[in-house]
Amino acid sequence: MAVVSVPPLIDLGAVLVGGLTGTLLAVRKRFDLVGGASLAIVAGVGGGIIRDVLLQQGPPAALQDSRYLITALVAAAVGFYRSDDVARIGRVLIAVDALNLGVFTVVGALKALTAGLAPVPAVFLGIVTAVGGGILRDVLAGEAPALFQTGELYATVSAVGSVLFVVLWRSSLVSHAAAGIIAIVVMLVLRLLAVRYGWRAPKPPVDAPGTGLA
Amino acid sequence: MAVVSVPPLIDLGAVLVGGLTGTLLAVRKRFDLVGGASLAIVAGVGGGIIRDVLLQQGPPAALQDSRYLITALVAAAVGFYRSDDVARIGRVLIAVDALNLGVFTVVGALKALTAGLAPVPAVFLGIVTAVGGGILRDVLAGEAPALFQTGELYATVSAVGSVLFVVLWRSSLVSHAAAGIIAIVVMLVLRLLAVRYGWRAPKPPVDAPGTGLA
Amino acid sequence: MAVVSVPPLIDLGAVLVGGLTGTLLAVRKRFDLVGGASLAIVAGVGGGIIRDVLLQQGPPAALQDSRYLITALVAAAVGFYRSDDVARIGRVLIAVDALNLGVFTVVGALKALTAGLAPVPAVFLGIVTAVGGGILRDVLAGEAPALFQTGELYATVSAVGSVLFVVLWRSSLVSHAAAGIIAIVVMLVLRLLAVRYGWRAPKPPVDAPGTGLA
Repeated sequence: MAVVSVPPLIDLGAVLVGGLTGTLLAVRKRFDLVGGASLAIVAGVGGGIIRDVLLQQGPPAALQDSRYLITALVAAAVGFYRSDDVARIGRVLIAVDALNLGVFTVVGALKALTAGLAPVPAVFLGIVTAVGGGILRDVLAGEAPALFQTGELYATVSAVGSVLFVVLWRSSLVSHAAAGIIAIVVMLVLRLLAVRYGWRAPKPPVDAPGTGLA
Repeated sequence: MAVVSVPPLIDLGAVLVGGLTGTLLAVRKRFDLVGGASLAIVAGVGGGIIRDVLLQQGPPAALQDSRYLITALVAAAVGFYRSDDVARIGRVLIAVDALNLGVFTVVGALKALTAGLAPVPAVFLGIVTAVGGGILRDVLAGEAPALFQTGELYATVSAVGSVLFVVLWRSSLVSHAAAGIIAIVVMLVLRLLAVRYGWRAPKPPVDAPGTGLA
Repeated sequence: MAVVSVPPLIDLGAVLVGGLTGTLLAVRKRFDLVGGASLAIVAGVGGGIIRDVLLQQGPPAALQDSRYLITALVAAAVGFYRSDDVARIGRVLIAVDALNLGVFTVVGALKALTAGLAPVPAVFLGIVTAVGGGILRDVLAGEAPALFQTGELYATVSAVGSVLFVVLWRSSLVSHAAAGIIAIVVMLVLRLLAVRYGWRAPKPPVDAPGTGLA
């Protein structure tokens, strides 16, 4: 589907960066190489796989082209044996990742819209594509997802961008391509500002007593 | 498929109650609003999504209609900012949830039967629809599922009702509609009795030594 | 699809052994019978279900035939009430499991190849079929997967065998049947040697500092 294609450099670059986050987590948890490769794959292509499994239009894109898994395995090898070097370029990775966040939100929402889904589920699938891999990575590492706990504006930026993209895409204000580019730029800027100024999502105001609900 | 339709009030009410359990868990774990919204969605619509992904008949029902996700987000907002009030009506929620348990067991098993599945897998999908969201919620929160540990009769009630429904549905003793209503009533009564009298599922009689199996 | 059929005794035997590992874990964690049955099902048929959900060719094989779930439930009952006896035959189970590892790697990769997937994703689905159930079992039990941590050569053996099978299957060196049998025998021998001599996958050389990536 040409309409949802992303330049391969961006696409595979995002899998590489996502894969690195998976392997670094595996190294921090002192997992072995199997754990490193598994978390690299899950973090690199997990979000897109969840999206495609939910859309049910054939095997996930990440399994239709050998380059995705190979890229994730390269990330695993580099992250496992060169974790120091990877950590050293952490600031660069955060910037690249801020771009990826926007690209994958837009690709996910676009795929959902072109599959005929309603706006709210399309927004949802945009977010899932962008953050699903990171959530799965943390759960497979035996941890509650970092995304749920740190308050960092990451899923929130994806949500803002996903809503913006779907609204623009369905309006006749701008072309479909412009809708995607505007949303990606807004997410990139928002994410970098959030990192720079330490913006945080709200924490619960009070503690919740148990309800006895299963 | 008209045959599996549930009145929207019951359907969305179940998503609301399920969503509340997700958000309250997020509040207890001191997750941020992203965590609260994520667990509300997973707890509210996760069981149905697992069922639909397994049945492979197109995108999950929960993504075909914007109201499901919106309802889960309402639950997230209410549970996050009014967790005290929600906990206060815990007993009402348990009663409503006992009804939902039966409704979703029957809807899940029915969808599986009408998709042509054999009785045992249909019983299984009834249970998965009813309890899958709660299991996914706990796993995403970084905890072993409460359902596996407390011994509370919840999945067990769903299992009894799912077997009863599938047997009645395939027999010619009662109409298909009657099969559903009988099963739902039996589950409602069983669940309320189990809560009232503290019935528990069996715990393992002895501890298991390791086997070295991976 | 006759080409991917496995003799039922091997097929259901593998579900039984997988199911036992699930129930024994549930017993060790002091879960109740619901937890034991759930982990037996996940460990017994989870890998094949993940494979079939990714291949998107209709409901998973494990839900097309009632015997799979029934076998997993038998494993749950035996493992729950006779965990001592099961642990006593641990060495036999490890040998049977080494055979299963190979069989399911080959079945998974073969299903992927016949579905038209490229070699690298086919290798990946072979491994997922063999180890996916065990990973899901551990995650549902609230633990990081044992496969990621112990360094045991299990997923690694599956990876070697999956590559070997896909290469042989696509070459014209041997018949398709011979490709499968050779790969299964190689995996069986490798796995038993790895257990016998305590071979281990590499651990990360150094600890990884955080990168601030979400």
